[in-house]
Amino acid sequence: VTGVAGRMTPKDHPNRPGEFAMIAQIFAPLSGSAPGAFGLSDDAASCTLPTGHDMVVTTDVLVEGVHFLRDDLAELIARKSLRVNLSDLAAKGADTVGYLLTLSLPDWVDTGWLEGFANGLRVDQDEFGIALLGGDTTSTPGPLTIGITALGSVRRGGMLRRAGAEVGDRVFVTGTIGDAGGGLEILQGSEDSLSEADRDFLVSRYLLPQPRLGFGTLLKGLATASLDVSDGLIADLGHISDVSGVRIVVEASNIPLSPALAALWGNGTGTAARAASAGDDYEIAFTAPESLLQTLNAASQESGVVFTEIGRVEEGSGVSLLDPDGNAVAVDKPGFTHF
Amino acid sequence: VTGVAGRMTPKDHPNRPGEFAMIAQIFAPLSGSAPGAFGLSDDAASCTLPTGHDMVVTTDVLVEGVHFLRDDLAELIARKSLRVNLSDLAAKGADTVGYLLTLSLPDWVDTGWLEGFANGLRVDQDEFGIALLGGDTTSTPGPLTIGITALGSVRRGGMLRRAGAEVGDRVFVTGTIGDAGGGLEILQGSEDSLSEADRDFLVSRYLLPQPRLGFGTLLKGLATASLDVSDGLIADLGHISDVSGVRIVVEASNIPLSPALAALWGNGTGTAARAASAGDDYEIAFTAPESLLQTLNAASQESGVVFTEIGRVEEGSGVSLLDPDGNAVAVDKPGFTHF
Repeated sequence: VTGVAGRMTPKDHPNRPGEFAMIAQIFAPLSGSAPGAFGLSDDAASCTLPTGHDMVVTTDVLVEGVHFLRDDLAELIARKSLRVNLSDLAAKGADTVGYLLTLSLPDWVDTGWLEGFANGLRVDQDEFGIALLGGDTTSTPGPLTIGITALGSVRRGGMLRRAGAEVGDRVFVTGTIGDAGGGLEILQGSEDSLSEADRDFLVSRYLLPQPRLGFGTLLKGLATASLDVSDGLIADLGHISDVSGVRIVVEASNIPLSPALAALWGNGTGTAARAASAGDDYEIAFTAPESLLQTLNAASQESGVVFTEIGRVEEGSGVSLLDPDGNAVAVDKPGFTHF
Repeated sequence: VTGVAGRMTPKDHPNRPGEFAMIAQIFAPLSGSAPGAFGLSDDAASCTLPTGHDMVVTTDVLVEGVHFLRDDLAELIARKSLRVNLSDLAAKGADTVGYLLTLSLPDWVDTGWLEGFANGLRVDQDEFGIALLGGDTTSTPGPLTIGITALGSVRRGGMLRRAGAEVGDRVFVTGTIGDAGGGLEILQGSEDSLSEADRDFLVSRYLLPQPRLGFGTLLKGLATASLDVSDGLIADLGHISDVSGVRIVVEASNIPLSPALAALWGNGTGTAARAASAGDDYEIAFTAPESLLQTLNAASQESGVVFTEIGRVEEGSGVSLLDPDGNAVAVDKPGFTHF
């Protein structure tokens, strides 16, 4: 798109290559040998899916000052940006196909930053078997803004949905909850009583989410509803509750907490409630009939991803968090929204 | 994605609904009855293509102050944002499938603006037979930033490419060239010698590009190379030249100019050169063998989109613009880049 203001004053950026050179030198190598990416030399990418498959598409935007800070490592900004999208694909049971990248670049972004960002993408592309298929770059007078659209594939009609939880189902979540919230607290505060290993674990859980792709694809045909936990466990289960038209009851004592988070926040119902509203977990929360527990355990073994039963689906609406005596626990801030 | 800075100070926005309400009230209606959009209630969308088809994906970002101004009508910002992406699909020979929308919203965006923006999308969704399939919204401390990812479909392997122009092919372009550049000049200047009809025509050509979808789909199997003209005719033909490994020669006197643009800039080689570097045309430039001219004329008749032969493909590299005496014409600013 040609600019209005920018058009009148096309800027020189002494610190980074021009648009075409930047694409050719820094980003085209990330398209690798993906046949439909055409080395980022075309207006669009072309994706061939296996016969009888649907394309699954999801998109997320990350803004400097809102989702990351300018001084964060470019490599880690890149990897988190990609991973939060891959986490959506995982929770939908999709195999990865590729992704598109948009960058709105302020003047402070220089070649070194772009190279670091591309290096981060490269590392995670290799880890998750995905390539860059296309994108767009523009200048901006505002904050660095990163958009990623992730493309995946599922057998026709097989995308895991938020709708579908049934009364009697059990509620599960992968991994541990609240770690990213603890990691953010460490990054922003002066906490110094933790062991270095615990600090590193929690901070890395915040900086580098782990999309549960291997487990997600095995959930197809098993989970009745599924999503990734980004707003906070209770808030996200609320989405399943809303769309499925059911009540979800979670036992606070069953919410899986890491030893590192317990060292930071202590154990108990209060910590569980705090963890369940912290957000940024990028674990998969899902519902499934109890009869499938053995199959789910096999999927866990195969993928190396642990999960925990945390509650049950009942008639009604809303999400309740119960303490060990069966009393409802207040959740102060049910997740974070940007508005 | 949970925020860093924003997370600590979740803002109230008295002028617009919260994130979930905004999606439900303003954007979910735009997903219509598209089966894979799930009423925007899920983490991802699911797209089923006809058997034997590929997905074509393209994305563009538009930034306040760079691509549009804050005071521009929200309806028109929406429609242009969508149309520049549809123009890419058209030039690739794709049928429209749907689109994703990301919005990074500064505080000044209120409910009225969002409703106007959604109205604009609605109008063009109806015109081009496309629905909103998903997206993401976030707050930003910077300029309003709009990202659109357009999804289309083509028969397997049938996407029109920039690569493929062959020596001996003719070069064509749809519509007229330079109108948007004239329209922008009118909007930014004090030009007042034109008739109101001419002014309106040129300004509307700048504000509301016309994706040539009907013609584009008919180009499949005919055009050897194709792209949409956004950077400027000469610059964009340069992309075909680069990727196809050929020289492209354009006759300045054959570049199609509208009567309105001729009234603004005059006729002649100088105007043609200026038009050919103005950009924002969103016409389709393509190459095809001369033997297909009759078939191309039939496609023009069927779609109601006119095209003009403007040059030829030769051995060599680069793009040359020739005056009626066969001398090369300098093109001062071969298109606009944002860097």
